[in-house]
Amino acid sequence: MGNCIVPYCDGPKSTNIRWTLPAVCFVWQTAMIILFGVFVRYNGESDAHWAEFKMARNITSDIDNDFYFRYPSFQDVHVMIFVGFGFLMTFLKRYSFGGVGFNFLVAAFGLQWALLMQGWFHSLDYTDGMIKIGIENLINADFCVAGCLIAYGAVLGKVSPVQLMVMTLFGITLFAVEEYIISDLLHARDAGGSMVIHIFGGYYGLAISWVLYRPNLKESSQLQGSVYHSDVFAMIGTLFLWMFWPSFNSATCDHGDGQHRAAINTYLSLAATVLTTFAISSLSQKHGKLDMVHIQNSTLAGGVAVGTAAEFMLMPYGSLIVGFCCGLLSTLGYLYITPFMEKKLKIQDTCGIHNLHAMPGVIGGIVGAITAAAATESVYGKEGLVNTFDFTNEFKNRTPAVQGGYQAAAMCVAVCFGIGGGTLVGLILRMPIWGDVTDDNCFNDEFYWEVPDEEEIVVPVLEYNNHMTPNNMGVYY
Amino acid sequence: MGNCIVPYCDGPKSTNIRWTLPAVCFVWQTAMIILFGVFVRYNGESDAHWAEFKMARNITSDIDNDFYFRYPSFQDVHVMIFVGFGFLMTFLKRYSFGGVGFNFLVAAFGLQWALLMQGWFHSLDYTDGMIKIGIENLINADFCVAGCLIAYGAVLGKVSPVQLMVMTLFGITLFAVEEYIISDLLHARDAGGSMVIHIFGGYYGLAISWVLYRPNLKESSQLQGSVYHSDVFAMIGTLFLWMFWPSFNSATCDHGDGQHRAAINTYLSLAATVLTTFAISSLSQKHGKLDMVHIQNSTLAGGVAVGTAAEFMLMPYGSLIVGFCCGLLSTLGYLYITPFMEKKLKIQDTCGIHNLHAMPGVIGGIVGAITAAAATESVYGKEGLVNTFDFTNEFKNRTPAVQGGYQAAAMCVAVCFGIGGGTLVGLILRMPIWGDVTDDNCFNDEFYWEVPDEEEIVVPVLEYNNHMTPNNMGVYY
Amino acid sequence: MGNCIVPYCDGPKSTNIRWTLPAVCFVWQTAMIILFGVFVRYNGESDAHWAEFKMARNITSDIDNDFYFRYPSFQDVHVMIFVGFGFLMTFLKRYSFGGVGFNFLVAAFGLQWALLMQGWFHSLDYTDGMIKIGIENLINADFCVAGCLIAYGAVLGKVSPVQLMVMTLFGITLFAVEEYIISDLLHARDAGGSMVIHIFGGYYGLAISWVLYRPNLKESSQLQGSVYHSDVFAMIGTLFLWMFWPSFNSATCDHGDGQHRAAINTYLSLAATVLTTFAISSLSQKHGKLDMVHIQNSTLAGGVAVGTAAEFMLMPYGSLIVGFCCGLLSTLGYLYITPFMEKKLKIQDTCGIHNLHAMPGVIGGIVGAITAAAATESVYGKEGLVNTFDFTNEFKNRTPAVQGGYQAAAMCVAVCFGIGGGTLVGLILRMPIWGDVTDDNCFNDEFYWEVPDEEEIVVPVLEYNNHMTPNNMGVYY
Repeated sequence: MGNCIVPYCDGPKSTNIRWTLPAVCFVWQTAMIILFGVFVRYNGESDAHWAEFKMARNITSDIDNDFYFRYPSFQDVHVMIFVGFGFLMTFLKRYSFGGVGFNFLVAAFGLQWALLMQGWFHSLDYTDGMIKIGIENLINADFCVAGCLIAYGAVLGKVSPVQLMVMTLFGITLFAVEEYIISDLLHARDAGGSMVIHIFGGYYGLAISWVLYRPNLKESSQLQGSVYHSDVFAMIGTLFLWMFWPSFNSATCDHGDGQHRAAINTYLSLAATVLTTFAISSLSQKHGKLDMVHIQNSTLAGGVAVGTAAEFMLMPYGSLIVGFCCGLLSTLGYLYITPFMEKKLKIQDTCGIHNLHAMPGVIGGIVGAITAAAATESVYGKEGLVNTFDFTNEFKNRTPAVQGGYQAAAMCVAVCFGIGGGTLVGLILRMPIWGDVTDDNCFNDEFYWEVPDEEEIVVPVLEYNNHMTPNNMGVYY
Repeated sequence: MGNCIVPYCDGPKSTNIRWTLPAVCFVWQTAMIILFGVFVRYNGESDAHWAEFKMARNITSDIDNDFYFRYPSFQDVHVMIFVGFGFLMTFLKRYSFGGVGFNFLVAAFGLQWALLMQGWFHSLDYTDGMIKIGIENLINADFCVAGCLIAYGAVLGKVSPVQLMVMTLFGITLFAVEEYIISDLLHARDAGGSMVIHIFGGYYGLAISWVLYRPNLKESSQLQGSVYHSDVFAMIGTLFLWMFWPSFNSATCDHGDGQHRAAINTYLSLAATVLTTFAISSLSQKHGKLDMVHIQNSTLAGGVAVGTAAEFMLMPYGSLIVGFCCGLLSTLGYLYITPFMEKKLKIQDTCGIHNLHAMPGVIGGIVGAITAAAATESVYGKEGLVNTFDFTNEFKNRTPAVQGGYQAAAMCVAVCFGIGGGTLVGLILRMPIWGDVTDDNCFNDEFYWEVPDEEEIVVPVLEYNNHMTPNNMGVYY
Repeated sequence: MGNCIVPYCDGPKSTNIRWTLPAVCFVWQTAMIILFGVFVRYNGESDAHWAEFKMARNITSDIDNDFYFRYPSFQDVHVMIFVGFGFLMTFLKRYSFGGVGFNFLVAAFGLQWALLMQGWFHSLDYTDGMIKIGIENLINADFCVAGCLIAYGAVLGKVSPVQLMVMTLFGITLFAVEEYIISDLLHARDAGGSMVIHIFGGYYGLAISWVLYRPNLKESSQLQGSVYHSDVFAMIGTLFLWMFWPSFNSATCDHGDGQHRAAINTYLSLAATVLTTFAISSLSQKHGKLDMVHIQNSTLAGGVAVGTAAEFMLMPYGSLIVGFCCGLLSTLGYLYITPFMEKKLKIQDTCGIHNLHAMPGVIGGIVGAITAAAATESVYGKEGLVNTFDFTNEFKNRTPAVQGGYQAAAMCVAVCFGIGGGTLVGLILRMPIWGDVTDDNCFNDEFYWEVPDEEEIVVPVLEYNNHMTPNNMGVYY
């Protein structure tokens, strides 16, 4: 049943996903196998013909295989996707299984679909009509998945796994088109995906959450919070995201100085964000106590906002300034914007992705546009300017100022795709067939998971004091 | 006392390991020091004579040191061994210390012994009789340890740390011999160790568990399950194993395309496994609820099964097919085979290693044999075929079809070593001197660990509501 | 109020950090931005002029950018700083937020200040007066931070975040000076920082803790311990430190054999430490039970002690011997020295940093001095000896024996800076303005964090058994 119209009538029954979830998984996975069979092959650097490829291009050492430039960063990004996003979403007291588990499911599906969608747009070998994949495709697939996981943050605890799969299917598709427009047609640079990933993912999720508005969500409020240990679990996610963000922003940059500079900029921006986040968090409470929600989320905003400009000559102090502002704004967002959005705009944003992704993404897009427009040959060097902005082929006459304009246009594209796509997908997700819970049963793993029974633990407590020897123990939480 | 004959008479006393464990640790570690002193030195790439080594081989850049090809993968494998396996075994409600702690102990011992055993077989410098080690030896030592940790999964919670050390000592020894037969004598390829590591480790553990059968284990059943938080801890292990499996399968592959392709194949296979695991897990329960045991374990089966063929031209869709089948079979294994084995075959398999390692390992061995036999020069290229299968020196006339036969033979060797070795070691472990617990005290950290007293927490609960002020609070879970 | 003089009179009020913490964060972060603006730029390998830099130095491939030599190690070190140290300090039952959270805050500040301080001493480009940073600077900044986080371990749970910031500001400053004296003036080698990082950090923290002695700390004793889950969280920290220590010790070593050898030595030393730690831990208890405190900490001592000599030709067996001794001594330290220090020397050392850092650091310094003095051309090769000890320029005539003397002198410098600096900073921290807690309120997150209310969980327990249905459940721990 549509969750807005008859919220109570069908009770827990509607959450039975015994047929829909397996059907979706089997059919889509089978489709992936067929499409991969028809379309996907190894590229020159991962194919067994590498020896010939090397010779043809005069490559002298195996170490010049792109694998060695990007694999360490790829693994870091991979950790961000599965442990970073996954554990960040374990903060709810009784939705940790869903947080980390559904994240796992949709990412594993999403990356396959992303390899195809992005492959058709970017890695198609026109000589044989095949998508040729290598390590950079894996990184981009993980990036594409990140967009959908961001969106998951807005609806965490309120949707069924089947809805998440549908969200991911459409999200990846929209992402690939949006990315093609931004990076190929507009030729905008977006190393860390402030626009392509974070703006799109953020608004996509918020728009879906807006369409799926749950008027009686407050009846689940008892579960919409953390407990002590779940907050510590969430810090695992926060820290892995925070630490590996330099790899995220540099993973697909140009070899050499591009990757090097992107890592430095991101490292610095994130460091500054931490300080302003702690400052605002402490300021906002009567006794100056810190709030774990801010520490878990806002400390990451600097990584988002430095994404577009990461490869540019933003300068170390520029990175710090970006981080400084983002920690401040993101934390204020949690304090004022999230409650405002929930009350006035009817947008319920479980993880506060507006403050962590959408808004910092916009800042990142603006920073990118400005720094691109301000680029000069004296700062970049003649060759450096061409390399950094890829002013080659049909774009060889583009000037930095014009590039700045295209960067700004790219940002608008990302916002439109996010809001437009999210609204449409939200409407699809309102169909009464997806097995989502009623408003008073949100944020509860019991509906989709076999949750270990804690009751049996309560009983031995009583026996505890009676027959207790080294055998002799009882209370297990 | 033998745990089968007089299960109750000696009670908790028998678990005193105050002399045996320290004795084993000190004596064995001292032996390691002596053997390393006699036998182990740095190899050409880690020795201070590297400058001369470089010049002799016309190497122009330090980046061509094998360290830079393999160190990132090594660290990922290292994480899998200690955090991956360790945290995967924290899922029991009251055996998390033992899961992660004993894993730590036996891995730290095992890798030293593995460096020696594998060194004698593979890295002996006949000019001076010394084992010369470098980064690849460290990776192989970690691999060797993985075999023993897999075996630990079958007996988790039912053996003493001293028994684990003994299991590891023999396990590493058997592993090194088996590996020598498979990789040197049979010249079978096994990049990710589906056969060498997983089949061997799986059957080794199952055979030990069979010999150590505990008829009254059900009396510990109260502890043979998880609690909410322990399941989340176990997901840390699952995810690090899942994410870094591409590094595991590619770590010792050929430089260049070999490592690159192995990483791609593993990445894809694992992704497909996740979807079929979720599907079967949901299908198996009346309300379609997912079971954490499946998600924690079966999602990894695809990495095991693609191990042997990871470096081959399995093709992206081939990897997906392997992953698809493994997620399905592994989850069905948890549903049907594990209970069957326990009831009918008297094999108690705590972590279900049969479903995660032994069976997927066999699938991997079969896939490897078939894809090797089917290899053609048109797919691999002339040089690619020689490089991938190492058809050089005395094997330069071997054809792919013959290679397929040897691959199949290798699989049989792994099975035989696992079952034969495990049975023998199991008999040794039945001696009444190892300090293991009785059947009704399994899965309980209290016998080998100082467990923090939770009792004091229960009392303040009542006071909590009465005089709770910032300096006076009570309930801490 | 000074915590020694009037411990009770001001109660929880004194912990209000609503103005001090934000002020410190904002002002210091702003200062960083200004100083970075004036002083910090990219170096030749991270600047967009890289193409010209390459040409000028005849570098043929982008892979020779230092980024590719060091980035994987950098990320491992980064994980050690934030997850390793952070989670190691979550072991207290009710101070996990403070452990991981304040670690995050001070590390994020510290690395910025370290980039400046170390930059002025080591990376100043005299042509334009600018600090030029690249990946090696980021690693060194993380190292510098490590020294301060070690010190945090001694005062964990007893200081306010503002005090920690002050400790870090002075700690980084002292560190940079000490490092300059040791590595530049004395020209001592200290790859993994046994002296520069661990001795300094250890004694710095112990001296501060000594000055801040809390006579009535036992009144907080109920909270100065772990619970089951907090011990498992701490193992995350332990394992990431343990696994990535080879990266820590090799991160800034010479390209090629230097990094390679340092990783091998550290790997081996740590493995041996684990065995002796388990042995002593088991020996020390009547029933041979293991103590999590030892496993979490002493297992790491081998990494500390092999730090100085990691790059030397310590030989594999030499590394094992160092690890063997350190596991033994460190565990004995927890058993005998920590209680002795607390009772007799009035030094309260929450995490036992004396056993994990200070003492093993001294062992490492001694090992380094001896192995340096014993270095010969036959073992290192002519060029190897020069490269390993950097006997170039004004040091080209230094002999190994003399080098050994300077290594010993360096150790004394580190001890003096630690004790002297710590005493001074401790006095500053005794000023009654920093918002620290009273003696009976230590180890409690309630004073600085919004801790989720667990009370609501207690009530539903009773309802649990009555009307538990899938939509209506209660007990959540």
